[in-house]
This record gives sequence, C-alpha cells and structure tokens, in this order.
Amino acid sequence: MGLTIAEKIIKNHLVDGDMTTGSEIGIIFDHTLTHDVTGTLGYLAFETMNIPKVKAELSLSYVDHNLLQADYKNMDDHMFLKSTAEKFGVILSRAGNGICHSIHYQRFGKPGKTLIGSDSHSTTGGGLGVLCIGAGALDVAMSMAGEAYYLQMPEIVKVELKGKLSPGVAAKDIILELLRRIGVKGGLGKIMEYSGKGVNSLSVPERATITNMGAEVGATTSIFPSDEITKEFLVKQGREKDFVEIKADEDAVYSEVITIDLDTLMPLVAMPSMPDNVVKVSELEQVKVNQVFIGSCTNGSYADIAKAAKVLKGKKVHPDVSLSVSAGTRQTFQELMRDGIIADLVTSGARIMENSCGACTGIGQAPNTGGVSVRTSNRNFKGRSGTMDAKLYLVSPETAAATAITGYVSQVLDGENAQVLENIGEPEVYHIDDTMFIYPPEDGSGVEIYRGPNIKPLPIPEILIGNLEVPVVGKFGDNITTDDITPASATFSALRSNVPEISKITFMGRDTDFVERAKKMERSIIVGGENYGQGSSREHAAVAPMYLGVKAVIAKSIARIHKANLINFGVLPLVFKNKEDYDKIDREDILFIENIVDQIKSKKVTVLNKTKDISFEVEIEVTDREATILASGGKLNFVKNKNKKI
Amino acid sequence: MGLTIAEKIIKNHLVDGDMTTGSEIGIIFDHTLTHDVTGTLGYLAFETMNIPKVKAELSLSYVDHNLLQADYKNMDDHMFLKSTAEKFGVILSRAGNGICHSIHYQRFGKPGKTLIGSDSHSTTGGGLGVLCIGAGALDVAMSMAGEAYYLQMPEIVKVELKGKLSPGVAAKDIILELLRRIGVKGGLGKIMEYSGKGVNSLSVPERATITNMGAEVGATTSIFPSDEITKEFLVKQGREKDFVEIKADEDAVYSEVITIDLDTLMPLVAMPSMPDNVVKVSELEQVKVNQVFIGSCTNGSYADIAKAAKVLKGKKVHPDVSLSVSAGTRQTFQELMRDGIIADLVTSGARIMENSCGACTGIGQAPNTGGVSVRTSNRNFKGRSGTMDAKLYLVSPETAAATAITGYVSQVLDGENAQVLENIGEPEVYHIDDTMFIYPPEDGSGVEIYRGPNIKPLPIPEILIGNLEVPVVGKFGDNITTDDITPASATFSALRSNVPEISKITFMGRDTDFVERAKKMERSIIVGGENYGQGSSREHAAVAPMYLGVKAVIAKSIARIHKANLINFGVLPLVFKNKEDYDKIDREDILFIENIVDQIKSKKVTVLNKTKDISFEVEIEVTDREATILASGGKLNFVKNKNKKI
Repeated sequence: MGLTIAEKIIKNHLVDGDMTTGSEIGIIFDHTLTHDVTGTLGYLAFETMNIPKVKAELSLSYVDHNLLQADYKNMDDHMFLKSTAEKFGVILSRAGNGICHSIHYQRFGKPGKTLIGSDSHSTTGGGLGVLCIGAGALDVAMSMAGEAYYLQMPEIVKVELKGKLSPGVAAKDIILELLRRIGVKGGLGKIMEYSGKGVNSLSVPERATITNMGAEVGATTSIFPSDEITKEFLVKQGREKDFVEIKADEDAVYSEVITIDLDTLMPLVAMPSMPDNVVKVSELEQVKVNQVFIGSCTNGSYADIAKAAKVLKGKKVHPDVSLSVSAGTRQTFQELMRDGIIADLVTSGARIMENSCGACTGIGQAPNTGGVSVRTSNRNFKGRSGTMDAKLYLVSPETAAATAITGYVSQVLDGENAQVLENIGEPEVYHIDDTMFIYPPEDGSGVEIYRGPNIKPLPIPEILIGNLEVPVVGKFGDNITTDDITPASATFSALRSNVPEISKITFMGRDTDFVERAKKMERSIIVGGENYGQGSSREHAAVAPMYLGVKAVIAKSIARIHKANLINFGVLPLVFKNKEDYDKIDREDILFIENIVDQIKSKKVTVLNKTKDISFEVEIEVTDREATILASGGKLNFVKNKNKKI
Repeated sequence: MGLTIAEKIIKNHLVDGDMTTGSEIGIIFDHTLTHDVTGTLGYLAFETMNIPKVKAELSLSYVDHNLLQADYKNMDDHMFLKSTAEKFGVILSRAGNGICHSIHYQRFGKPGKTLIGSDSHSTTGGGLGVLCIGAGALDVAMSMAGEAYYLQMPEIVKVELKGKLSPGVAAKDIILELLRRIGVKGGLGKIMEYSGKGVNSLSVPERATITNMGAEVGATTSIFPSDEITKEFLVKQGREKDFVEIKADEDAVYSEVITIDLDTLMPLVAMPSMPDNVVKVSELEQVKVNQVFIGSCTNGSYADIAKAAKVLKGKKVHPDVSLSVSAGTRQTFQELMRDGIIADLVTSGARIMENSCGACTGIGQAPNTGGVSVRTSNRNFKGRSGTMDAKLYLVSPETAAATAITGYVSQVLDGENAQVLENIGEPEVYHIDDTMFIYPPEDGSGVEIYRGPNIKPLPIPEILIGNLEVPVVGKFGDNITTDDITPASATFSALRSNVPEISKITFMGRDTDFVERAKKMERSIIVGGENYGQGSSREHAAVAPMYLGVKAVIAKSIARIHKANLINFGVLPLVFKNKEDYDKIDREDILFIENIVDQIKSKKVTVLNKTKDISFEVEIEVTDREATILASGGKLNFVKNKNKKI
C-alpha cells in the first residue's frame, strides 16, 4: 500500500508506535521554533532540565510578536531570549527580521523534515513540504531536549484542488472555502494533504497561506507536495541543496477526499467572530469599515503585498479607513522597497508597520470601540485585535485593498480590472541577507542568562492524590478559544513570562468575575462545550487556570494542542461520555471524584454532582504515557522525577 | 532703535500691552497646532465655547503620537479628532503622515507668522522664521477661538554662531552646547534669537533641530532669520510664495549675547537624566548601550537619517544593540526610500518604525530594565522612554549611528572618516504629496462628533472662596518635569482624554503613594523646588493634581507653560519670596491661607504653617488678567462666565 506525503515523513521520524490511525505515535522533530511570546516559557522550562545544549538538528528563537515595547517587559524578554539562545545553542532571529513562520520557510525549512513550533501556525511550513506541528512551549522544549513528541496518528485527508484561480481570487479564498465547508472543528485529528492540478499553479507562499490557516480547521497540520515549484522557490532562496521531491504514492490511501474547484471560486470573507463564518464577499450586505490590515504570517508575502499595492495604485485609502501594512519578513520588505511597492503603498495612504506579527494578534493597531476591521490575518476571534468588541473580517490581500479604497467590504472583481493582478507573483530572485540571525557560540556554558523583573519561574502544579471535591468555577459554551481564556493584545502578551500576573486576566472577556471566584474557591473545575481551547497554542490558557487552582476541565470536546497543554500542566482534560450531561451541571455545583489517580489510570472517571446528587461518566482520552504524566502532576514534575531516577 | 526678528513678528501680532521686557502682552496667533495626545483635551475645551468654526487663519490637528493602538483608546481618539476637525474647520493630518512639528514647517509654516501649539516643541518652526510657542491645549483652543494669548514680553537673547560645523559634528551639538552652558532654566522668560555667519551654513531642518530643542533651555521660543536658505527650502517645497525675508535690524538690542564657535565644536552627549547634563562624547567613560533610536521631531529630517545611514553603510548594528529608526514625516520617508536609504538602514540591521513621535515620548521602543538608550530625541528625563529606570543619552544622528555599530557611546570622529558626511544634505527637490491631510468641509455644523468610551468631559475646577486650610500632599526637589507629574508612555498617554483615569498615575515614578494620600486629604497643596513643571507642555500635569484636590503649588520657581496650565485649571502657582522657606515645610504640614481671593488679587500671599507655627510670604506672579482667571476658578469657568455675560 502506498503512502501519503505525511505518512512518508512521519515514517522517517517515527520512534514509537505504528502509523495506525488513532494510535499513539512518538516522533522526533528535526527543527524547533519558538517566538518571544511563547518562547520565554519554553526556555524557562528547558532550563529546568539541566541539559547544556539543544539536541534538535536546528532550533530557532524568533523575536517577532511583542515589538511594540510599550514598557520594559518586551525588551527584557528579548534580552532573555538572546541570552538563552546563546547559552543553549539556538539561533536567534532578531526583532525586525520578521515573522517566524514566514522566515522559517524562506530560510530554513527543508522538504521532508519535521518541525515543532510553540505557535499554532507553525503549520505554515507545510507549504514547503515540511511536516510542521504547533504545540505548547513545554513540548517544544522537550523536542529541543531530543525527546520524542507523542500524538495520536491523525487521519490523512486529501484536499484535491482542481483548476486555477482567477485574478482577484486568492489562495486565501481556498482556505476560507475549506473553512466554510468543514468548519473550525472539521480538521480535528486530521492532516490535510493537498494535491491535484490546482497545486501546480500555487507558489510556495500561496501554499503557505493555506497550510498556515489550516490551523483554523483544527487540523494537526496541512501539507503540500515538494515539487518543481518547491524547487524553484528553494533555488531562488539560494537553497537548491535543500530540495528533495516528495509526492504521495499513486496508491496512497486517504480517509476522505475533499475537492475544491479553483475555477469557480469567488472572493470570500470570514465574518465575525469565527474563521468558519464564511460567505462570498458579493453576498455580504454593505459593511462600513474603519480599519484594514494587510500582512501577517498568512498573507505577508511579496506577491500578497504587491497585489494589494497594485489594486491601490493610483487610488487613495478612503478617509474613514486606517490602512496598515506590514511585510512578513525583512527579506520581503527589502524586495518590496527595491521594487518601489512600499513607496506606492505609502503614496496611496498606507501606514507601514514593522515586519512583525503586530496587528494580527492585537499587538498594536487595535481598532476603535466596536470598530470594523478587515484583515488578511488568520483569526477573527472576539478580542483578538486588542479591542474586545471590534468586528473582524478575514479576507485576501486583494479584497483588503479593494476595501481600503471604497471604505466598504469590497472585492477586486467589483468594477476593478482584476486582470492587472494576473502577472503579479513572487520576484524573479530573492536577495539573501541572513545578518539578522545571531548564531550561538560553540560552547555557551559561560553565558549568563539575562532576567528582567517580569521573568518569573514557572509555577509547578500540585500533585493530585486521594479524592477531588471541588466546585465548578465557570461554565462555558462551544468553541471557547485560548484567546478567550488568556486574551491576546500588547498589554497581556507582555505578561507571558509572569504567570502570577497573567493569571489575573483569565477569561477576562467572557466572565469578568472568574479570577476572583477561582481565588475564593482555591481549587475548582471548569466546564466547557465543544472544541474547548481551540485557536492559538498558548499554554498560558492551561497554566493560568492551573495557577488559579483549576484541577480539571470537563468539556464536550477539547482541542488537541490545548489538551496536550492541560496534561503538561497537570490539569485533567475530561470529556463527557454523554454530551447531555453538560446540561446537568451549573456553576458553583460541587463535583466529587473518588480516588482520582486510580480513575485516571483506568481512563474512565465517574463524577458525582453533589449539589444535584447526580452521577455521570466522563472519559479521559489519554494514552498510558499521558496518564502517568497527569498522575505525576504534569510534565515538569514528570521530567524532574525521571531525571532524579537517572 | 532697531528691532530683533522676534520683536518684528510680535509687533505685527500685538493686540494688547507694549513690548517692554517683562510686561504682559497679548498676541494673536495665525496658526494653531494640536496633536492626538494633547489635542483631545483642546477640542473638548473648544466644544464648551459654542463657537461653530475656528477663527485662526490656519488650524491643524495632527495624529502623530499614539499610533501604537495597543487597545481601542488610541483609534477612538483618532476618530474623535477627525470628527472635531471636520466640525470645527480644522485640517486633519492622518496617522502615518508624520510628526506635527516637522510636517508643519515643511508644508505650512510661513516666515513672519505666529504659531501656537499644544506641545512644548511647537517652537520647531522657529527654524523657518516663524514665531512659535508651546502652550496648554486650553490656550490653543482659545487661539482657535480667535482670542489673544497673554505672556510676559520675554528678553531677547542673541545667540551668535561663528564658523562652520565639521563633518561628524551636527546642529544637535550646537543646542547641546547651549544646554551645557546655560542649563535647563537658562532660557526662562527669554527668546533665543540666532544670528552670525554660522547661520548661513545651516539648512532649515538643522535650524529646526536647534529651535526644537530650544524648549529644553526653558526658552519661550527660539528663532532663526528668514533668509536665502529659508527661501531655497520653501522653493523646494513648492512654496516660494510663502517666503518673506526677515532679519534683525543692524541696531537691534539684545539683553544678552551668547557666542558659539562652530569650528571648535565637538560631538556632545546629554547624559541621564537631564538635557543639560552635557559632556563631550570623547570625555565619556565607556558606556555599554542596549538601544539606539534615530528619529523624532528633533532629528528626523532627510539629512539626519541619510547621515546616520552613511555612517552605518557597509557595517552592522552591534548584536547587543536594538536600533530603531523613524523618519519625521511621510515626505521624508518617501525621499529616503526613493534614494535607497531606508533599504541601506535595513541592510545594516535597523528596525524601521512608523513615521511618528514613537520612542521619543515612550510610546513604544521602551528599553530594557535599567537599560542604556542613546537617542536623537530631545528629552532624557527619568521615565521618558516608558522604562522608569532606563538611562537615556541624547546625541546627534551621526553619534547615534556610530554608537549602534560599536555598542558603546561613540562619535563618528573615532576612527571614522567623517569626511564622507560632508556632502550629505537635504535632497535637491522635495516631492510634494499632501494627500494625507483631510480638509474640513466649508460647513461642518452637521458633523457628529465621534466619542469613544474613554473620552470623558473635562472636569471643572472648584472656585476658591474664604480661607484655605489644607495639608501638604507632597514635597519635591528641583527640576520636577511634567513627565514626573503625569508620565509619558504608551499606556498613560492613551488616558489623556480621560482625566479621572489619568489622575490615578500622578507622580507615579516619584512618589508612589501620592494619589492615595491626595484622595485621603481631599484638598491639598504641593511643595516644589526650582523650575517646577519643566518639560512637556502637557496640561494633564495641572489637570490631574487639580482633579485630586490640589489647590496650590508652592515652589522656588515654576516653568512658564506649566504655570499657565495651573492658572488655566484654577490651581494657585505660588512662589517662595525667600527660597529658604522651602525648608520650613514638611509633607503633611497643615498650611493656612486667609481670604484667599483677596490675597490673590494683591499678589502677595501670607502662608501660615499651622503644624510648625511659622508664617512665610509667597508671591503669586500673575497679571491682573490671570488673577481674575484664578479667582474665577480657572479659564473654563472664566470663559463660561464671560460668555454668560454676553
């Protein structure tokens, strides 16, 4: 039986288990990636392991998120990361170099390799034929330490692209179409593998737009073949030697096939406040817009921004719209300047932001109160922009540019001559300049770690023993995101290296009294609906509740990365056996679980709602390995104990 | 008797008083300027006056300070300002267009005109021969309403520049030299008027560097002649028609002459934490640097940044240094891009920030904890960078660039071939693009003002009657800046349209319990040393204490703009008759002033320290007009009453 692309790469990196769908596998990751917002926690964790130097083939620490530096905390973090990179043998990508995912596929990604990154959009490199996965920083730290990463072998879904995009319709519209069809949970436990004739007309950056936002369907990852287009990209990046061809075998078997016809695709828009709330731009009622943002790891490529500039050329940004643009990487910014495209954008009225994640994750460029912001980024969750009640629409760069001109959500096809976009692609050659990477010394043992006052040690979870009898601190509906649990934004993300501080804003936008209640209760349980913990990989969404005394989450389903983070930080991820039991619990109810450790090991847990005197079953969908981690009080306790034994 | 430049312009705008030094004069301002941080308060005040349209010849509302948009507040302010501009007949300069002072002299300033701006560096336009003054936003609102502005006729000081700057030595070093000689109080009550052969070799942007930072010597303003160089600048800006020659008469009389020899001037640096703490760069011990910032209204011109780029060309920013650069205006940014200079800077490792005030006033790019930041901006006060304990050094762009390379405070003369800088000046022609200005409609009466939830009405001061018996809430030393009273930074400046909120951080960096104490005392007095309230013109430094119940400030001396702001907001600006009496007061002492209004009118006030049972005299150095304003409870009450009478 033939293999899919993903199976081929997994097979080459498998160190435990077999590739039967659903069974636990252990994989070695060649590359690791962190950024400044999740990375500090990762290096704090790595430090506790007493390993002098990373064991992964290549580890990068990117500084790309918190570049506003509204106070000392950001630059303290940057300096902490520079010192840990030097100490532990990690390459540092300096502030100003651009966004981790985009840089990584431009300069480091190699088809056939594996990458684990402490960011849910680490999947971006799938556009280059790399098997990339997002995880909590603690898991990335484990991979840096050379440990295997464990997950359930995903199903492999074939996404067959037919035909060719028309000018004015973009790669972004392909992934929005997938979101429209399968929703934000449609990819849970799956790898989306792209194939078909349509693939041949998509550049690596276009493919990367799709694999990047594959995170939004909840997929473990997304991947494209490594083909002639991949080779051409690597040649232009001066990295021909990194090319290997990887294609699915003719007789590869997929669990499912989804076909998207690019010929008939139209510009799409994800409406507030979920990326799968997708309609055709042409179907949208007139929506007056306050802000447009073009950039991010989803749509910050040369062609993305060149197309937006072309749409804007000779026209002006509407007086009621603030248009901000940022290139994905320094390389792209330089190419765009060289070709006069940044100047064209400025002439049209754009504001040019530093090459960084910025507006995408609410670090700057927050819209006005209740404002409408049209963005090329990947998430439109409530509060994601830094303004709690702003309304975010996700679109392609072409659509964003057309919108900036009219002041209403608009597509290029509306009256524009979309043909002008036809020949705009990536530049003929990329100019290589790697001088914003700082390579670590051969021996970093003498490097002293810089620690600002906001960098606090990681809190260690309490080890569970005996019976658990605790109240329900909060009850939430479906699709709670990690943004809901620990909000994005400049202010809050600056607190990522300080758990006691960041815990104070837990569930801020959803349940203003949550923190006070949790503190009063001391130990408690959260109840959630479907797809609890979707979105960003930030493990603060697990650490902060843990710090506040949350011992377990009981939900209808829990998103993959968040579940892993809960386990890592010793919080029980429990799933209702019968979803109706969700309705049998109210906030403040006292729940009782007998002999908690024994029940974890049996993976079936009986919960008694003492307040209502009703019992119900929950499942704890963990492997034996994960059950042991939970019984040990999370991964840091687990690793510490393991090392003690050695 | 001949006239100086300043006297000629004042004479043309005088509506009250005569030009005898020290006597009160009333002047009409042709141009008014506000920005987003002080402007909201100005338009809130203008709104209370019930005047449909500004009466000044030209009024501009610049959006240039708070462009980070860390949450909804900044963009809410921007939209408020757009709506008030449209309603009241003001030109709006959009976010992204650049810094108010730099834009204003590029596109609007006219030699011989007067300008009042709600920013202490409004004096920048003196480089173009405009008589410019910084004031509180309330006073700017009065000028928008066509009212005269009152001040004491300053002394006119002649600053004679001899010789010519050597390459590597900059206009910045001229003003640093003046600061070294006369200090931050040396210009109080004075206008610094530049003349001499040295003037002929200084471009308008170089002159503007000097007049900009003339604010740091405490001068009312600084001014250069309008000559052939001025004409050439205006021609390049497509504004030849705006040129008029203005020179001092041969027999003009000055109160004082200061001579600076440019031939022997060397690169200088203002050390933490006062702009007059100046030494030669070459005399400085090795200072390891964490951050360099090149830009601001002081040094954000084409030649400034081109020179820095030239120093950096072929070299790299030191790995331990974060270099951020921002052009002063969009015009300058476009010229720099056109000539490949931004690309050169990026190649050297610079981070490019939006054209804005940014780092200068702690709105982004805050250094690390205790970090050393070398900046081309104008102020190095404690906390100014957004990091309370950072150490700020002020230098020229050339020195900043040399520092970025070595990682230590360094001058170009150290081993560099400074000659390469000799021929770098302003571009041959400026490309004009005014499309980021939004012109108001002829009739703005139908425009609805946009108000975000952070925009609160201006609090109105209590009207003083009877006796005043209040405790001393805080006692401070010399040179307390308005940054000390209400800190700069991204977070805090976003609160400028919300006095109840911003009052919570009063004296935060100097006296952490001040707010709590003031609230407990309900009504109180502040005691200060020399030059109380120097620095930025922000009237929040008067409004916030007023809101907290501060009824008077007793100090050894009070800076001009701050004194005006105190009067405007009904807080008594009292000055010790005998400076030794300062030592006779401690915090918490109860001070008693009998029949306060009568004493204000007599301008001599007796204060009884009830706690220590000592009496002492203070003076209230105000005009009759100001005494009436104080007795009326500040300017808003005064204007309201005045309008009522009409």
